[in-house]
Amino acid sequence: MHVEHLGWSRSGALRILDQTLLPAEERWLEIATLPALVEAIRSLRVRGAPAIGIAAAMGLVAILRERTDSGAQERFLALVDETAWAVGSARPTAVNLRWAMERMRRCAQAAGGAPAVVLGALQAEAQAIWDEDRAMCQAIAEHGQVLMRTGIRVVTHCNTGALATGGIGTALGIVLLAAERGLGPEVFVDETRPLWQGSRLTAWELQRAGIRYAVQPDSAAASLMARGKVDLVLVGADRIARNGDFANKLGTLPLAIVAHYHGVPFYAVAPSSSFDPACPSGAAIPIEHREAAEVTAPFGIPVAPAASAAFNPAFDVTTAALVTGYVTERGIIHPPFEE
Amino acid sequence: MHVEHLGWSRSGALRILDQTLLPAEERWLEIATLPALVEAIRSLRVRGAPAIGIAAAMGLVAILRERTDSGAQERFLALVDETAWAVGSARPTAVNLRWAMERMRRCAQAAGGAPAVVLGALQAEAQAIWDEDRAMCQAIAEHGQVLMRTGIRVVTHCNTGALATGGIGTALGIVLLAAERGLGPEVFVDETRPLWQGSRLTAWELQRAGIRYAVQPDSAAASLMARGKVDLVLVGADRIARNGDFANKLGTLPLAIVAHYHGVPFYAVAPSSSFDPACPSGAAIPIEHREAAEVTAPFGIPVAPAASAAFNPAFDVTTAALVTGYVTERGIIHPPFEE
Repeated sequence: MHVEHLGWSRSGALRILDQTLLPAEERWLEIATLPALVEAIRSLRVRGAPAIGIAAAMGLVAILRERTDSGAQERFLALVDETAWAVGSARPTAVNLRWAMERMRRCAQAAGGAPAVVLGALQAEAQAIWDEDRAMCQAIAEHGQVLMRTGIRVVTHCNTGALATGGIGTALGIVLLAAERGLGPEVFVDETRPLWQGSRLTAWELQRAGIRYAVQPDSAAASLMARGKVDLVLVGADRIARNGDFANKLGTLPLAIVAHYHGVPFYAVAPSSSFDPACPSGAAIPIEHREAAEVTAPFGIPVAPAASAAFNPAFDVTTAALVTGYVTERGIIHPPFEE
Repeated sequence: MHVEHLGWSRSGALRILDQTLLPAEERWLEIATLPALVEAIRSLRVRGAPAIGIAAAMGLVAILRERTDSGAQERFLALVDETAWAVGSARPTAVNLRWAMERMRRCAQAAGGAPAVVLGALQAEAQAIWDEDRAMCQAIAEHGQVLMRTGIRVVTHCNTGALATGGIGTALGIVLLAAERGLGPEVFVDETRPLWQGSRLTAWELQRAGIRYAVQPDSAAASLMARGKVDLVLVGADRIARNGDFANKLGTLPLAIVAHYHGVPFYAVAPSSSFDPACPSGAAIPIEHREAAEVTAPFGIPVAPAASAAFNPAFDVTTAALVTGYVTERGIIHPPFEE
C-alpha cells in the first residue's frame, strides 16, 4: 500500500505531512488560513503537481469554513474568488493548481445559495478532486504496466509517487504497482538537486515499499546508461503543451537528452489535468526561478562563497522530440494534444 | 594573479591548502608522513589531476627526508619504490599520480649514490614537475585564447583552476587568462555533486579574480543551452585514451551530451601528462566508486533514508565523438593520440 499524506482534521482543517522534513521526521501540519496555505505550497511542504491541486482545493475549503458569516451570497462568492486567486498564484508553473482553483470557483458559482450551501458544494468538489486523482493514478499505473517486465531497471527524477498525488503516484506509481505485482523492479533515484526530492521522498517511498533502489547524483544517470544498466526512464510532468513539450522538475531535460543519446525509452507520466491544450509549445510555459540560497547554502551550510549568484530555475522544458510517449489515465498517447 | 595552494614548509614538509574546507576556511596542512599524504589525496584535501601529481612528488620527498639514515643505497632505493607505490595507489583513476610516481622512481634509480644524493635529485625532480606544470598551464591558457572573445559565456564543471594544478589551471585557466586580458568572460559554474568542487572551489577562484559567475545545479546547464545562453563548454580531463575518450569528474559525460545536442562547442583541456596512449579507449579506464554517504548524507545531514544504497562513481567517461577538440600545452589537437 502507498503512503497517505493528505487529509481533513477533525475540525475541518487541511492536514498535510510536511514533506520538507522527510525522511528525518514525519510531522503533520493543520492548515486553515490563507497565509499558512500559501506558505505551505510555496515552501514545498506539499509538492507535486496533482498533490498541490488537491491540497489547494481542500485548503480553500478549510479557509472558507471560518468565513461563512462574512455576509450575503455575493460577498461570499467574491471571497471565494479572491481566495482561490491568491492560492492559485502561490506557484507560477504548475497548471494543476490553477486548474483546481478554477474548478472550485465554477463550483461555487454553480452552487449559488447561502454561504453554507456553497461551502458544502466546495467541500464535495475538493473531495471529488482528490477521489478523481486517486482513480486517475490507479488508471495511469495500470496503463503503464505495458512498459514493465520482471527485473526492469528504471531511472526516475524528483518525486512522482504517492507523496506527489492523491493516490499511488504517477511515474513512480507505475513502478509501485509493478512491485505489488511481483515484478521486482529496481529503481535508480536521481537525488534531484537543489531540494533532494528524489533522495528524501522517492527513496523514502521505495524503502517503505520494499523496492530495491539506489540514489545517485543527477549527473550519474548518463554513466548508468553508457554501461547498459537502464531499461526505462519515467518522469512526471507539471505542464504539457499541445505539441508535447512539457515542463517538469529541473533536470528532466538533460535526463531526456542522455536517454535519447543512449536509445533508452523515456516516458512522461501525468494525469489529463497536466495537459494544457491552450499552450502551443514549451516556449509559452513560464518558468519559476527560486532563490540562490537553495543552491549556494543547502541546510544553511555555505557551499559557495558569500554573495555568489545562482541560476536556479525550478523547472526545465523538455522538447517533444525526446519523449517516447505520454502515459495518462486514458492510455499511452502522442502529440498533438487537442481538447 | 591566481591562487597558490602548494608549497614547501621551512622544515621541508609538503604544505597544502586543505581544499575540503574551502570556501569557509583557509587552513594549511603540513605533511611529512606516508599515512598523512595518502589520507590527504584520498580525502581530496588536494585534488585535480595535475595538483595530485605535484603534491604526491613533493610529499614523497618530505616523507623520504626523514628516512635517509635507513640504510645503504639499495635499501633506500627500495624504500623509494615502496613509498612511491603506496602513494601512487591512493586513487585509482588519475593517470598523473602514477605518472609522477613513476618519474620519481626513475629519477631515484638514475641518481644512484648515497641516500642524501638520491634525496637531492628527488627534490629537484619534484620541483621540476611543479615548474613544468606551471609552464604547461600557461601554455594551455595561451593556446585556449583562440576560443575566447569579449563577453563569452562559458559553462565549466568541477574545478580546473589554479587549485587543480601547479599554475593558473587548465580549463578554468583559459578563462582566468581571458579575464586578465580584459575580455570580461562570464562563467556558469556547475556545482558538481556530490562534493561541490564547482561551488566551493571554482566559484571561490572566480570571486577572487573578480570574474562574473553564477553557480548552478549540475542539471541546469541544459536549460541555459536551450535558451541560447552558452557559447562554450570547457572541462578538464583526468585521463585521455588514445582514441580520445576521456575520464573526468562525474557529470562531464551528460554535459558533453547536452552540449552536443544543442550544438555548443565542447573542449577537454589537459596537459600531456593526462594523455595515456597505452589506453586504447574509455572502456579500459578503471572508474573509482566512492562511498554512499557522499551522496546520501552531505555534511553528515541525511538526505536519504538510513541504509540507502547509492551509485557514486567519482568519474565518468566521455566518448570522443562528443568532443570538439582537446586543448593542450602543444595546441588544440584531435585523436588518435600517439606517443
